[in-house]
Amino acid sequence: MQNRLAKPAKRLPVAPKRSGGGTPRLPTTILGVDPSLRGTGYGVIRTGKPFPQTLAQGTISCPAGWERSRCLAKILATLRDVIREHRPTVCIIEGLFYAQNLQTALIMGEARGAALAAIAEAGLEIYELAPRKVKQAIVGYGAAQKIAVAKMVQRMLNLAELPAPDAADALALALTHAQENGRFGLTAPKKI
Amino acid sequence: MQNRLAKPAKRLPVAPKRSGGGTPRLPTTILGVDPSLRGTGYGVIRTGKPFPQTLAQGTISCPAGWERSRCLAKILATLRDVIREHRPTVCIIEGLFYAQNLQTALIMGEARGAALAAIAEAGLEIYELAPRKVKQAIVGYGAAQKIAVAKMVQRMLNLAELPAPDAADALALALTHAQENGRFGLTAPKKI
Repeated sequence: MQNRLAKPAKRLPVAPKRSGGGTPRLPTTILGVDPSLRGTGYGVIRTGKPFPQTLAQGTISCPAGWERSRCLAKILATLRDVIREHRPTVCIIEGLFYAQNLQTALIMGEARGAALAAIAEAGLEIYELAPRKVKQAIVGYGAAQKIAVAKMVQRMLNLAELPAPDAADALALALTHAQENGRFGLTAPKKI
Repeated sequence: MQNRLAKPAKRLPVAPKRSGGGTPRLPTTILGVDPSLRGTGYGVIRTGKPFPQTLAQGTISCPAGWERSRCLAKILATLRDVIREHRPTVCIIEGLFYAQNLQTALIMGEARGAALAAIAEAGLEIYELAPRKVKQAIVGYGAAQKIAVAKMVQRMLNLAELPAPDAADALALALTHAQENGRFGLTAPKKI
């Protein structure tokens, strides 16, 4: 049901609402994920006025001593639990378009694979956003520093404390999607 | 319990059995996985004489039209089902040490990540083996062709039909581990 209601907003981002003129669009619950093997950030927001509500945020930390496969299992299990609890209908994941070398790309790919499998299995629609685009949308500058993103996320979500860097990146992804969905966009988000 | 029994054989591959001299070692159920986004091969064998028993084998096929995330969810769900049904205690996954470019490495990494997350969550011990080492062990030639591997796998497992290429690779991984575990090895398998 939530899913059905959320869909038109995604397919046709600028469509006028069917019921009444000035009422705000139906709230959407959005999951943002910034995957990495040792510290996957996640954040769940629910769109609304005057600012979106933060339902969950955190970092899936895996100590350096853990085997890679153990980290992947933790990413899978944690995201599954977060989705089960907060029922987001859309997920925005950080797109990776650069890696230092093949080994790094492989390991980053593994973390993304575990995350995406959990999210896709739960039936969310998944979109990819480039880090640069997120920074541009949140801070107004594509090469903004991590701390600047975190501070702006804190302000936009009216959080009492500064979110941890990975969680802030994840919340920024969700916020960017919420923003882009509410205005004309030149490019549709990339579905993966 | 199975798990506890299987462990000493892996840590100490050449340890003498505790019970009696000439009796064969306790049978182990081994899962082999050759992950890829569109065609992950898997095979489950149970060690024994005169040849190991093939409990399951197949390819997790995902059409080219599917979104990547949908393929990853299918890899996750299928491997979870296979493990639930056949209860392997050890998994051998094909190690990837080469990719044409970063994009390929990322996509291959994603498929590995989905597979590894499913396997690690089920509590299996996971080892990585290089394709070259598997070919060397099965065919006796590190650059052997896929068809040669499939034919040898068919013979070693006494299969009525030639296994499909991806499934054959997965069965070859499991067979190599079964072989290596039964003799002196110069290098321990790489745990991931």
